[in-house]
Amino acid sequence: MNLFQNMKTKLLPIAAVTVLTAGIFAGAELQHTEKANAKKQDKTEIKNVIVMIGDGMGTPYINAYRSMKNNGETPNNPTLTEFDRNLTGMMMTHPDDPDHNITDSAAAGTALATGVKTYNNAIGVDKNRKKVKSVLEEAKQQGKSTGLVATSEINHATPAAYGAHNESRKNMNQIANSYIDDKIKGKQKIDVLLGGGKSYFNRKDRNVTKEFKQAGYSYVTTKQALKKNNDQQVLGLFADGGLAKALDRDSNTPSLKDMTVSAIDRLNQNKKGFFLMVEGSQIDWAAHDNDTVGAMSEVKDFEQAYKAAVDFAKKDKHTLVIANADHTTGGFTIGANGEKNWHPEPILAAKKTPEFMAKKISEGKPVKDVLTRYTDLTFTSEEIKSVQTAGQADKSKGAYKAIIKIFNTRSNSGWTSTDHTGEEVPLYAYGPGKEKFRGLINNTDHAHIIFKILKTGK
Amino acid sequence: MNLFQNMKTKLLPIAAVTVLTAGIFAGAELQHTEKANAKKQDKTEIKNVIVMIGDGMGTPYINAYRSMKNNGETPNNPTLTEFDRNLTGMMMTHPDDPDHNITDSAAAGTALATGVKTYNNAIGVDKNRKKVKSVLEEAKQQGKSTGLVATSEINHATPAAYGAHNESRKNMNQIANSYIDDKIKGKQKIDVLLGGGKSYFNRKDRNVTKEFKQAGYSYVTTKQALKKNNDQQVLGLFADGGLAKALDRDSNTPSLKDMTVSAIDRLNQNKKGFFLMVEGSQIDWAAHDNDTVGAMSEVKDFEQAYKAAVDFAKKDKHTLVIANADHTTGGFTIGANGEKNWHPEPILAAKKTPEFMAKKISEGKPVKDVLTRYTDLTFTSEEIKSVQTAGQADKSKGAYKAIIKIFNTRSNSGWTSTDHTGEEVPLYAYGPGKEKFRGLINNTDHAHIIFKILKTGK
Repeated sequence: MNLFQNMKTKLLPIAAVTVLTAGIFAGAELQHTEKANAKKQDKTEIKNVIVMIGDGMGTPYINAYRSMKNNGETPNNPTLTEFDRNLTGMMMTHPDDPDHNITDSAAAGTALATGVKTYNNAIGVDKNRKKVKSVLEEAKQQGKSTGLVATSEINHATPAAYGAHNESRKNMNQIANSYIDDKIKGKQKIDVLLGGGKSYFNRKDRNVTKEFKQAGYSYVTTKQALKKNNDQQVLGLFADGGLAKALDRDSNTPSLKDMTVSAIDRLNQNKKGFFLMVEGSQIDWAAHDNDTVGAMSEVKDFEQAYKAAVDFAKKDKHTLVIANADHTTGGFTIGANGEKNWHPEPILAAKKTPEFMAKKISEGKPVKDVLTRYTDLTFTSEEIKSVQTAGQADKSKGAYKAIIKIFNTRSNSGWTSTDHTGEEVPLYAYGPGKEKFRGLINNTDHAHIIFKILKTGK
Repeated sequence: MNLFQNMKTKLLPIAAVTVLTAGIFAGAELQHTEKANAKKQDKTEIKNVIVMIGDGMGTPYINAYRSMKNNGETPNNPTLTEFDRNLTGMMMTHPDDPDHNITDSAAAGTALATGVKTYNNAIGVDKNRKKVKSVLEEAKQQGKSTGLVATSEINHATPAAYGAHNESRKNMNQIANSYIDDKIKGKQKIDVLLGGGKSYFNRKDRNVTKEFKQAGYSYVTTKQALKKNNDQQVLGLFADGGLAKALDRDSNTPSLKDMTVSAIDRLNQNKKGFFLMVEGSQIDWAAHDNDTVGAMSEVKDFEQAYKAAVDFAKKDKHTLVIANADHTTGGFTIGANGEKNWHPEPILAAKKTPEFMAKKISEGKPVKDVLTRYTDLTFTSEEIKSVQTAGQADKSKGAYKAIIKIFNTRSNSGWTSTDHTGEEVPLYAYGPGKEKFRGLINNTDHAHIIFKILKTGK
């Protein structure tokens, strides 16, 4: 029905005029109409594709973050997340793995990047360990510019699945090597690389950073240097490992939005268009630790980057922006323990993550001072004691886990796992071609649709 | 893009011919086309609306059930559930309650039925306890036939929200009374009532069943009697409380599909069309107990009823079928405990629910005999002992809980609560008007869209 309604409101006025004109003045032929229609399609060519992956960001994360935006109130018309208005469907995430039916980020990334289901740990290879082409590689073959942005190491599983081929995600040095070694039509495969992972590029056995510079790339390591530089090819590594979480970042570290905007500015200089993959990597990392504060910090960081990408697409009109999780993590649930409430207030009251606070405690700062300084909460003596006791019993993780537990208890967050869970994830699309992502799709469909767009422009 | 593609492949051949014929022989006017198009719309009037509510059936339930259909394998092209192919969006479920931001089935049912957010426990009343009109009542005002079908008591929260107004779901006698007392334009409000709840209708203080018969309704209490009878107005009560779960039902008890088909057959005799609400009530009940076997039994029962409704809509072409949960329950997750697997095999191996098995044990049957007889599994001595010990410690619930635990451990199911959780739920629509349910909607939008359809036929 809507098809007719849409046709009436959006398409028929134009289509009908074309048809009628053609019919009367040039003879009535159905073919004519189809040609006119095909021309109309060409006008909305999709030049640029931006894939945004919130690692681990399943349904409950969006729900919790929306609840934070509404301070826990449940108004009739809640403040929506930037994702919500672009929901088109959901996506199944299962791998093709002999030992697991729940995916890791490598198999999920490979499915999203190449359209091939594979085993957990696989980076851009099928289950026979054969290399399979990624949409990033297809884009480069088509003469487009390409980019990878992440808050993890830029050679971590998800970006690696788009930019490399390796039988294991664990071979992170090899993956960093491929980023400089791999060429397509004699050109570097990836034009813009922004994220963490400096230690994998500046190595004793091989200085990959230096090779990137020799290949003509700019190399930057701070937010300020990234802003000053506007070369079309850039390697930006802002931490030895992953970037600090958004709540904990210092002024030298760019946000995911900073990196995304910087990448788009560079890639958009190519008249043939671009492909960009942006990952909010650490939603998943926080979720593995069942850390609600850390996860929400990273959902917010990812949302702001997403908004920047959609804002670009709104102006550009030839850019498709797709966002989704690769899987969900931790078995996070909104409410738990037999109570019909989830409380965002304690999460909103955290000024730093539990990780940051635990580090201060491990450096010798008193528990009460740390908790009070880095939150807007008043803690009970039992809560303070729980962190002290846990910190003494397990020096490396005890205080961290105990602080996480306080936030989970106060917010009434549920968690069932320290690993991924199997639920399908929400799927968001904005821009020309968005309707291709409607309904329930497989993660491999995600790549198949993008391959077709890259090859045909629609 | 896709809109054009659809138009080209499905619509333009017909639309273009119409337009061209009109253009050449009757003068080219854009208005003409729009009129033709408007006529085309009228032809696809939505006469019947079927709302199917899987109580508590959030994302993980669909995922687990799909995994069962695929025997735990993760093929590239999995066997989809009947729901999957009709996914159009997701739905937010929060109530407007001073004490809770997670809904119960009464507030959720009232939002779905009336388009008004209200407090938990409210049946068809707003937060000031004022009656608000339901889509079922609107349908009856429009001269359509109306029906309620459920596997719970037919006067339980969800059906009650469509058919009654009461300040509390707990007033189940009063709700049963309103089903016979309430009239619209001098006629009974609800033509077909099929479900459980006999004890609330055959009471000492008032014999509501008798009053229904006096009002001209047939009254049936078995599957066989339901099949034989074909009156347009019927009260069918097949259990004192809720119906037995699908896995446990005897041959006298209809399935949800039996009741749905029977309701459609009766309601479809009205040329003005009908409104029908069908609830798979006990997905939620099993989920409150964290009973994966029971929940899957009820998802399957609900899916078969859904398929029957969609099959009717496919033939009828003027029927819109919407399916969704009212909320999700239990914080169920696919996989748990740090392991990337969910195993459907033990769930598939259950021939009866844990509730049924525990009842046999409470009647004196040996634990090992019961577990072996009613499953296709071999149990360890530890598992058998766990049920024996728990049964001795807590005679009413111990064995039940221990059996549930065995299935959850073997399937690696996660649960965080014995109550509802707050995640948005998948939304499915089939038939004319289905596109109105695209994207993220609020549960109140669900009713607003249906009100408009009932008033305008589109």
